[in-house]
Amino acid sequence: MKSEQIRELIGKMTLEEKAGLCSGENFWNTKEIQRLHIPKVMLSDGPHGLRKQDVKADHLGVNESIQAVCFPAGCATAASFDRELMTEIGEAIGEECQAEGVGVILGPAVNIKRSPLCGRNFEYYSEDPYVASEMAGAFIRGVQSKNIGTSIKHFLANNQEHRRMTSSSDADERTLREIYLAAFEGAVRLSKPWTVMCSYNKINGVYASENPVYLTDILRKEWGFDGYVVSDWGAVNDRVLGLKAGMDLEMPGSGGVNDALIAEAVRSGELEEEVLDKACARILDVIYRYWENKDENAVFDRERDHALAEKAAEASIVLLKNEENVLPLTRERRVAFIGEFAEKPRYQGGGSSHINSFKVTSALEAAAASGLKITYEQGYQTDKDATIEELKNKAVDAAGNAEAAVIFAGLPDNFESEGYDRKHMRLPDCQNELIREICEVQPNTIVVLHNGSPVEMPWVHKVKGLIEAYLGGQAIGEAVVKVLYGEVNPSGRLAETFPLKLEDNPSYLFYQGEGDTVEYREGVFVGYRYYESKKAEVLFPFGYGLSYTQFAFRNMKVDRNSIKDTERITVSVDVTNTGAIAGKEVVQLYVTPASGNVLRPVIELRGFEKVALEPNETKTVTFVLDKRAFAYWDMRLHDWHVLSGEYTIHIAKSVRERILSSTVTVESTEAVPVVYDFNSTIGDIMKDPKGKAILEAAQKQMFAGTQAREMEENAQDSSGAVNHEMMQATMEGMPLRQMLSFIPGIKREMLQQLIDALNQK
Amino acid sequence: MKSEQIRELIGKMTLEEKAGLCSGENFWNTKEIQRLHIPKVMLSDGPHGLRKQDVKADHLGVNESIQAVCFPAGCATAASFDRELMTEIGEAIGEECQAEGVGVILGPAVNIKRSPLCGRNFEYYSEDPYVASEMAGAFIRGVQSKNIGTSIKHFLANNQEHRRMTSSSDADERTLREIYLAAFEGAVRLSKPWTVMCSYNKINGVYASENPVYLTDILRKEWGFDGYVVSDWGAVNDRVLGLKAGMDLEMPGSGGVNDALIAEAVRSGELEEEVLDKACARILDVIYRYWENKDENAVFDRERDHALAEKAAEASIVLLKNEENVLPLTRERRVAFIGEFAEKPRYQGGGSSHINSFKVTSALEAAAASGLKITYEQGYQTDKDATIEELKNKAVDAAGNAEAAVIFAGLPDNFESEGYDRKHMRLPDCQNELIREICEVQPNTIVVLHNGSPVEMPWVHKVKGLIEAYLGGQAIGEAVVKVLYGEVNPSGRLAETFPLKLEDNPSYLFYQGEGDTVEYREGVFVGYRYYESKKAEVLFPFGYGLSYTQFAFRNMKVDRNSIKDTERITVSVDVTNTGAIAGKEVVQLYVTPASGNVLRPVIELRGFEKVALEPNETKTVTFVLDKRAFAYWDMRLHDWHVLSGEYTIHIAKSVRERILSSTVTVESTEAVPVVYDFNSTIGDIMKDPKGKAILEAAQKQMFAGTQAREMEENAQDSSGAVNHEMMQATMEGMPLRQMLSFIPGIKREMLQQLIDALNQK
Repeated sequence: MKSEQIRELIGKMTLEEKAGLCSGENFWNTKEIQRLHIPKVMLSDGPHGLRKQDVKADHLGVNESIQAVCFPAGCATAASFDRELMTEIGEAIGEECQAEGVGVILGPAVNIKRSPLCGRNFEYYSEDPYVASEMAGAFIRGVQSKNIGTSIKHFLANNQEHRRMTSSSDADERTLREIYLAAFEGAVRLSKPWTVMCSYNKINGVYASENPVYLTDILRKEWGFDGYVVSDWGAVNDRVLGLKAGMDLEMPGSGGVNDALIAEAVRSGELEEEVLDKACARILDVIYRYWENKDENAVFDRERDHALAEKAAEASIVLLKNEENVLPLTRERRVAFIGEFAEKPRYQGGGSSHINSFKVTSALEAAAASGLKITYEQGYQTDKDATIEELKNKAVDAAGNAEAAVIFAGLPDNFESEGYDRKHMRLPDCQNELIREICEVQPNTIVVLHNGSPVEMPWVHKVKGLIEAYLGGQAIGEAVVKVLYGEVNPSGRLAETFPLKLEDNPSYLFYQGEGDTVEYREGVFVGYRYYESKKAEVLFPFGYGLSYTQFAFRNMKVDRNSIKDTERITVSVDVTNTGAIAGKEVVQLYVTPASGNVLRPVIELRGFEKVALEPNETKTVTFVLDKRAFAYWDMRLHDWHVLSGEYTIHIAKSVRERILSSTVTVESTEAVPVVYDFNSTIGDIMKDPKGKAILEAAQKQMFAGTQAREMEENAQDSSGAVNHEMMQATMEGMPLRQMLSFIPGIKREMLQQLIDALNQK
Repeated sequence: MKSEQIRELIGKMTLEEKAGLCSGENFWNTKEIQRLHIPKVMLSDGPHGLRKQDVKADHLGVNESIQAVCFPAGCATAASFDRELMTEIGEAIGEECQAEGVGVILGPAVNIKRSPLCGRNFEYYSEDPYVASEMAGAFIRGVQSKNIGTSIKHFLANNQEHRRMTSSSDADERTLREIYLAAFEGAVRLSKPWTVMCSYNKINGVYASENPVYLTDILRKEWGFDGYVVSDWGAVNDRVLGLKAGMDLEMPGSGGVNDALIAEAVRSGELEEEVLDKACARILDVIYRYWENKDENAVFDRERDHALAEKAAEASIVLLKNEENVLPLTRERRVAFIGEFAEKPRYQGGGSSHINSFKVTSALEAAAASGLKITYEQGYQTDKDATIEELKNKAVDAAGNAEAAVIFAGLPDNFESEGYDRKHMRLPDCQNELIREICEVQPNTIVVLHNGSPVEMPWVHKVKGLIEAYLGGQAIGEAVVKVLYGEVNPSGRLAETFPLKLEDNPSYLFYQGEGDTVEYREGVFVGYRYYESKKAEVLFPFGYGLSYTQFAFRNMKVDRNSIKDTERITVSVDVTNTGAIAGKEVVQLYVTPASGNVLRPVIELRGFEKVALEPNETKTVTFVLDKRAFAYWDMRLHDWHVLSGEYTIHIAKSVRERILSSTVTVESTEAVPVVYDFNSTIGDIMKDPKGKAILEAAQKQMFAGTQAREMEENAQDSSGAVNHEMMQATMEGMPLRQMLSFIPGIKREMLQQLIDALNQK
């Protein structure tokens, strides 16, 4: 519907109708206004499948939903580093929504993995905002190509479940810009989601649902977002403040309480009706985008989408260890599958993203279907973290009697879920014990992990093979078996660092905060930005993952050695599959910043491309870098800024395995304004060419050059108390006002004249 | 002079005389007022010896000073963990001051070692505020027993040299209280220094020299400080603001500029004359404390004080490694001393603390004097970090030809000094290379380190013996030789953690800050508080040090298992020398806090005692712990607070080697007040017994119990989306206002009534 028509429609609405349109009719639908033929629209949970609650939907949204297809969760699909795959999944889910009469799917979820403990990490993509934003953008394009809206979430800085309804995420402007906002920025700017979901928490003390800085200034004015903002379910605090801040649609509604407050606020003049009209216009616009493009022929083809879920799982599995090429297994080998997850895979997490899967394939079923003869033992229970000796002993026996053991391990449902954070980073003790004992009897042990977030692996040096299957969706069993037996060459890469232990995580000391105050003290040093800058050992670095083939990077080219920050640079590299089978490599581009007095991570991801290569095939991968690849957020300019200097561009297989590099000089076209005063230091003034000239001229006038010379001489004839370095540092660090203490005859007025001259230039 | 007399004297002073008294006459003296017979007093640099500049003193204070005795620097004496020794040194320096007509010695220096890079760490005591404060207090008692004033410095949060004149140390209230202020607090409260020196830097944006929170509210009102505050030399920014804030004496003065500003401010009414009078009263009080107790018979006995310097060095040396009991060396052994520092020890640092030592004993001289036959090779140069092949090769040869090699290594003068920070934590490369090569030819290699702050030791696993001699004062050579040959049993313990590498330091990512903003983001997690809480590997832990004998801890007793926070607890332990020779042990008491929603270090030092024991001798060491041993600084109460719960008391040999432990339950006698509102969570209310009763009664009334039950049932019949833990966490985390979204029929008024009831209780 055109904006004029929408405006006209709003003109016909009563105040109460308008206020009412700004909250849900029930748990999942907007309000229909029959009088004006305004239809309702259904929103449904995502993000990795359709969770549409059936008619019995309760007011808490936790009841049975329709049978659907569970795609791999965000933790897994991010590891695919495959934008096209994300778009394909988006298209499938969009089609499902069309078929099911759902107008907006509540996803993607791009929150940064600040700590491995966040209960909801499994829904999120990465510790890196670029990866999160790229994957989200690709998903949004897919869904919205089917004329279904997305709701990128949870905006903003919702990085823990603990006290998520009341806690405040306190971070500095730069950290929010470079890390937490950046996860949304690219996706919002380029892929234009129809809606954005604000989070439950506060940001620097102000609820996300009533925070105009993020909901209006940044989201709409800077990034050009033109859809509506919907509250996370129950995220509204002060409804009128929220509306003013740009929070358009309250879900699930408040039994009319908040609608009445809005109407009252308009009547009392506290709220301009224009603000309410704008919110209605945005909501109506999205309602009609859906209804006017409704595809009546859409079908929800569950089997077709199951196949896509399998493809996605295959692309997402990360091979972390493959000593002595223990993988792939040959069909002839006598293999034991161990662990309850072989029979009942953990393939998704609990909470709003939970899909009522129409079918689930376990690894055991997949192996059987493919004619493999596998022995199986349960090994452990998932209900409770306690070893059942009989189960364990049988499993150890079976493993010992086989030629290889594949242990399916991971986190049980109650170890990670929406709603609460993990208490530690360990697997259940009973599983660790089982793995340890099996390693003692079976040298060819492979562990397959089902988990939504990193775990500690005290046994990692004892297993030969290690597969991270994450929460890989309902077809994960098939995908895992294909990887185990080499039908699929694994190509996933970690989109998060696996630390050695929880305490290594940068947010560890301050995670979850005190009461409702959560300080993001690690700042921009999140994930690998911290581990690399601290030169810390990790279990597996960001970007890491093995293949059954090998790839070589050669012939890195940078089209220019020197650019201005307004220009672009093109980087290319040739990637060759040097092994014997087809495979996919993820080419990663990182930038190390120029040195300067800005506290920056030593390396940041600025590009990635996944390429499929036949044996001996070579492809050229090209990246275009612009200002943002070199910039940091400057808190004086309140803008992105590039320090002039030399930047290193790395072509890498992971953040730690950098293969090729090249330097480029970037020149800033923008100066940070400086105002001089009595506390300006001589060193700072001298660094500025104009300042230097003025200061030197003034020095001549003010004390005829004698003082500086005298100071230097003093340094020399002292009894070793002051070395040359100290004298130099003292001079450089000296604020102008200090001359009053150390240089006789200096008057305040002389310094004031100097300062005036410096500021006039 | 009695306060009435001082008041009378001030009554006779002109405004200009009063203003003038508040700054120095020259670099080292206060102003004499002949008209009123007010004498001047000389202040002189410390803190580990007397740096009195002779008559030629220039206006920068860097020229030749009188010949004096250089005691071990703070880095060393802190490692003695010996309060009596500190007092003895203080007495000696006090006597020296009396003899030399110096009224105030500018020390002790208690700044916390936030990073190994701080150029001035060598003057400071510890990363732990309790150690810093205890050592400083003992020193102050010693000096002041001679009726000489001390000036505890640099107040406050001056933990780097980089931009120290203009940078702002930005830390939260709790961090300042628990770490940075705490280093001063005990010493000021208990040992009553005559003066306090404010630092150059700003604290949270306000110059230390004009910060009333610290100079008046905390220092005087809370801690009872009754002397004057003197500016660090040139630390004054706005003189009038400074006077108002409690900064009494400006040094070295401003050529009259600031005196005039003070007088003008009084005349204009901007400054109350009463404020100026108070400052004068404090200055005069200290002037007369000195003059009225002048000891005309005092002598500066340099040889006697040299002997004390040697004793202090002996007590401060830390034996870090002694594999296969390579130490002590026997006199018969053919030993090579390697390294320029054997001939010219680095025994002090550069800057204001630099002593013009009347003599210095090198290890080579000490060995010769004691009749030892030692070969010597210079090995490296200190002027420049470059290997001189000839020097190195001769040294390697000499080492190879001996039965043991002692390498004297460390930081050259220009690697650490006042005025600038270290650029890295390494030794000069040329020294590392030399040590590495010597280890290849000589299995019995011992390294003696001369450095003011930790260094990385890439060769640590290759040397058998390792002695940390720090900057041990002018008699360090004698002390080192006595330790090497067993005449002295080493008893020093590290008062700081030696990290494996610089990047491990908690402040690493934010140290030195950006521009003039330095964020103390690690908060209270400084030094071992961080390494222990992060379970990080270190090179040598805080409190660590070996002996040539062994000690056993037995029979730990705690006089009560349960106390209120207003009560004290007595802890005792028997310490036995189980070895064959006499020695000294440092018994360390640490406390691990009760768990609770406060982010605290896992362990903190709360007591230490150094005990001398003959072989087989046992002594009982007793500690008395009060509230502060269990408390943290609560930012809601703005006071120390103890969480009720179980605390663990450790008796330990270092922070990592905890031998005995005992738990004690501490009950808080003080509640943190809570005000409930719409965002109070159900979990928080239920935790409060009264809140629970009110909420449960309200629930019955408000929705007749059906809703809660329904929610629980929903959780059960959902299709696995919500597990029991999630439902429970959701209920607990739910703010009251959210009931409007999730529980039909709830009205805002009902919630308001509930909140009112909760707050009325």
